[in-house]
Amino acid sequence: MKVQIISIGDEILIGQIVNTNSTWLATELTILGFTVSSILTISDDKQVINEAVNTGLQTNDLLIITGGLGPTNDDVTKHALTDLFNTTLEFSEEVFEDVQSFLHKRGVKMNSLNKTQAFFPKSAYLLNNNQGTAPGMWFEREGKVVVSLPGVPWEMKGIFQQQFVKKAEKFFKLPYIYYQTVMVTGISESELAEKIKLWEDTLPNNIKLAYLPAPGIVRLRLGIEGNKDENLKSILQENIDRLHNIIPEYIYSDIEITLQEKIGEIFINNNITLSTAESCTGGYIASLITSVAGSSRYFKGSIVAYSNNVKSEVLKVDNNQIEQYGAVSKQVVEQMAIGVNKLLKTDYSIATSGIAGPSGEKKDKPVGMVWIAVATPQGVFSDKFFFGKEREFNIKRSSVAGLNFLLRNIK
Amino acid sequence: MKVQIISIGDEILIGQIVNTNSTWLATELTILGFTVSSILTISDDKQVINEAVNTGLQTNDLLIITGGLGPTNDDVTKHALTDLFNTTLEFSEEVFEDVQSFLHKRGVKMNSLNKTQAFFPKSAYLLNNNQGTAPGMWFEREGKVVVSLPGVPWEMKGIFQQQFVKKAEKFFKLPYIYYQTVMVTGISESELAEKIKLWEDTLPNNIKLAYLPAPGIVRLRLGIEGNKDENLKSILQENIDRLHNIIPEYIYSDIEITLQEKIGEIFINNNITLSTAESCTGGYIASLITSVAGSSRYFKGSIVAYSNNVKSEVLKVDNNQIEQYGAVSKQVVEQMAIGVNKLLKTDYSIATSGIAGPSGEKKDKPVGMVWIAVATPQGVFSDKFFFGKEREFNIKRSSVAGLNFLLRNIK
Repeated sequence: MKVQIISIGDEILIGQIVNTNSTWLATELTILGFTVSSILTISDDKQVINEAVNTGLQTNDLLIITGGLGPTNDDVTKHALTDLFNTTLEFSEEVFEDVQSFLHKRGVKMNSLNKTQAFFPKSAYLLNNNQGTAPGMWFEREGKVVVSLPGVPWEMKGIFQQQFVKKAEKFFKLPYIYYQTVMVTGISESELAEKIKLWEDTLPNNIKLAYLPAPGIVRLRLGIEGNKDENLKSILQENIDRLHNIIPEYIYSDIEITLQEKIGEIFINNNITLSTAESCTGGYIASLITSVAGSSRYFKGSIVAYSNNVKSEVLKVDNNQIEQYGAVSKQVVEQMAIGVNKLLKTDYSIATSGIAGPSGEKKDKPVGMVWIAVATPQGVFSDKFFFGKEREFNIKRSSVAGLNFLLRNIK
Repeated sequence: MKVQIISIGDEILIGQIVNTNSTWLATELTILGFTVSSILTISDDKQVINEAVNTGLQTNDLLIITGGLGPTNDDVTKHALTDLFNTTLEFSEEVFEDVQSFLHKRGVKMNSLNKTQAFFPKSAYLLNNNQGTAPGMWFEREGKVVVSLPGVPWEMKGIFQQQFVKKAEKFFKLPYIYYQTVMVTGISESELAEKIKLWEDTLPNNIKLAYLPAPGIVRLRLGIEGNKDENLKSILQENIDRLHNIIPEYIYSDIEITLQEKIGEIFINNNITLSTAESCTGGYIASLITSVAGSSRYFKGSIVAYSNNVKSEVLKVDNNQIEQYGAVSKQVVEQMAIGVNKLLKTDYSIATSGIAGPSGEKKDKPVGMVWIAVATPQGVFSDKFFFGKEREFNIKRSSVAGLNFLLRNIK
C-alpha cells in the first residue's frame, strides 16, 4: 500500500519551521505496514493543492494531507478537497458540538470563525478532533483514500491515533507487523553494524531491521510480519536473544526507554539515591536525569564544578592533585565522585571532567578527552573517553556515556 | 525565481531521520531571493529521480537535489542526472585530486569505491567539495538549472555556501536583500504579534518580516529588498529603532545571538562572574550557559538543589522558611540565589524553584508555577512565572526566563 504525505504550509517553504509532522507520520505509517513513496510540502494555495492531490492519487493508494485547516487561513484545504471530490459543504451538527465542547472546556466563547469550521464536506467521513477546532476528513474515490488532518502536531497525532488507525486497518488490507525496539549504547552505529552484520544477514525474511541513531544511542527497531495467530512475538524474542549473545555489553533494554528512565526505574526499585558532579558536561547530566518525571524521589542534586576552586572548596578535591595531575584526570574525577556523594549524602554519583573545546587543549590532553567516574557503595570506578572536537556533540556524548557508565556499575 | 528542493533518501521516507537539510536550504534560498515552491522527498531510485526532475523543471527555474551521491549507494543520483542530461561520465583529474587530497588529510587510503567518484558528468559544472568525497554538480538546460549536492549536512552546506551562492547570483538575476534579525524574549509569539501589528502594517513594502519562534524566544527576521547603492541598511535600522520604542523591554539584541551568548559577552567585558542554584530547572540553565565556548571565563558552577536538604545544607537556606513558605516561594528562591553567590564566590547568580510537573501540585501552587531570583551586587530580585503543565516545555521556558531575568537585572 503506497502512501504520499503532503504538508501544506508556507512556513515550511521559507524554512521557518522544520517539518517534524512528516517525520512522525512517516514513522507511524511505516509501522502500520504502508510504504511511504514520497513526502511533499506545498504552498497554502487551492490550485496547488488540487494539482498535488490529483498527481498523488495516480500512483498512491492513500494521501495524508496536513495543514491548511485553521479558521484564519480560510480552510483552504477543506475548500480545495470539497471541490476536488465534487461535493458541497454542509453544516454539521456533530462538528459544531465538537467545536463548542472543545472551546467550552478551555473557557473560550465561540466566534464566527469557529462557526465556519462546522461546515463539513458532505461526502467525507468525519475524524473527530478532541484537541482543537479543525476536524479531520476522510475522502474516498475508486478505492483510494485522501485524509486531511490539521497541521498542529498534537491535534494531527491525536486524530491519527484515535481515529485514522482503526479506520485504515479496516479499509486497507495491511500486513500485521509486531515491533520491538532494542536500545543500544556505548558503540557507534557503524561499529555496531559491523559487529552484528552476520546476525542481521541471518534474520528470517519476515523480520525487518531499522537503525535509529541519536547522540550516544542506537535504537534497533525490529518488525516481524505475519499472521496474528503465529507466535510472532516469541520468534522475534529468539532473534533478540541471539543479539544479546553477540553484544551483551551494549544493550541496556529490550523496550524503548531512555537511559535516564532505565536508571530511574532501578533507583526507585532499590530505594537508592543519586547525585552528579559535573565539570565539562556543565549540568547536562543533571538535566537529563531531572527530565524524568518523579526523579526527585532518587536524585538529590548536582555540583556543577566548572572552576577548579569549586572542585576543591565544595567537592573537597585535593588541590595538590589538581596541580599534579590536572583537572582532567583519573585522580580528580574520582575525588569529585566521592566528594559529591559525601556532600549530598547519596549512594551513587556520576562525575565528569574533560575538555569540551574548542580551546583548553593541553599536552596529552586533546579536545574531546573526558574522564568519567562513578562512586558506588562498592567503590569508585573510572574510565577515559574520546568524543571528538565538536563542543555540543562532545557534551551530549559525554553525558550519555556517564549515564551508561553508572548503569554498568550498579550491582 | 522558483526553486524546488528535492531530497533523496529512504531513511527520510521511513521516518528514520528528520529532513533538516531541506529546512536549512529553504531558509538560505529564501534569503538569497528565491521562492521555494515545494519540497519533495523521494526514494533512492533512478526512475523516480528521473520523473521528479522532469516534472520539477516544468514549473521551476532551479532544482536543488540532495542525497544519493555516496560511493556505497552507487551514485544513483549522478547516474540518473547523467542520463537525463544526455551526457556521459568521464574521469575528472580535478575531482580525483580533490578526493585524494581530502582522504590524505584524514590519513585514509583511496579505495576503488572512491575512485568511481572521480567519474564526473561531461556537461556538468563542478562544485568542489572540501569536506567529503562526493562533488556537487551544476547542470543547465534551456536557462534552467539542476544542482545536485551530497546528503551529508556539512558537505551540503559547505558546497552551497562556498560554490553555489556565487554561481547562482551570477546566473540568476536575484534581487538584493539585506537581512537583520531582532531577538525577542519574555513574550509569546501571539502577544508579540498583537503588540507590533501597527508597526508591521506600516513597514515599507520592500521590507518583509518573518517570525521564527523557539522555546521562550522569537526571532524577528527583517529583509529589505532594493538596489545595493540605496541606503538599505539605514532604512531597515530606522524601522528597527521604531520597534525598540514599542517593545523596549522584550528586545535583547539586534543581531542573531542566543541569550547565553549575550550574557557571556557582558560577563567577559565587565570581568564579572556567574553561578546558578537550580531546583526545578535541574541543571538546564547551567548547561545552556556552558554550551557557550569560553564560558569557563565567567561561569564558576551551579548547585542543582533538587532536594530540600541540599537547599538547606549546601546553599544554607533557612529550614524554618522552607517549612513556613514551602520550597517554591519568594523567600526560598532568594536565599538560594544569595547562598550560591556566597558558596561559589560569584558576583551574580540565578536561582529557580518551581513545580515542573506532572505531580507536586499544592494548594495555591499549580504545576507550572516557578519562582526565579537573581542575586546581584545591587541586591536580590525575584519574580513568579507560569509556564504551563508540560514538564519538558516548562523546564526549557523557565531556563530561558531565568537567563532573561538575569539580563534585565545587570546594571
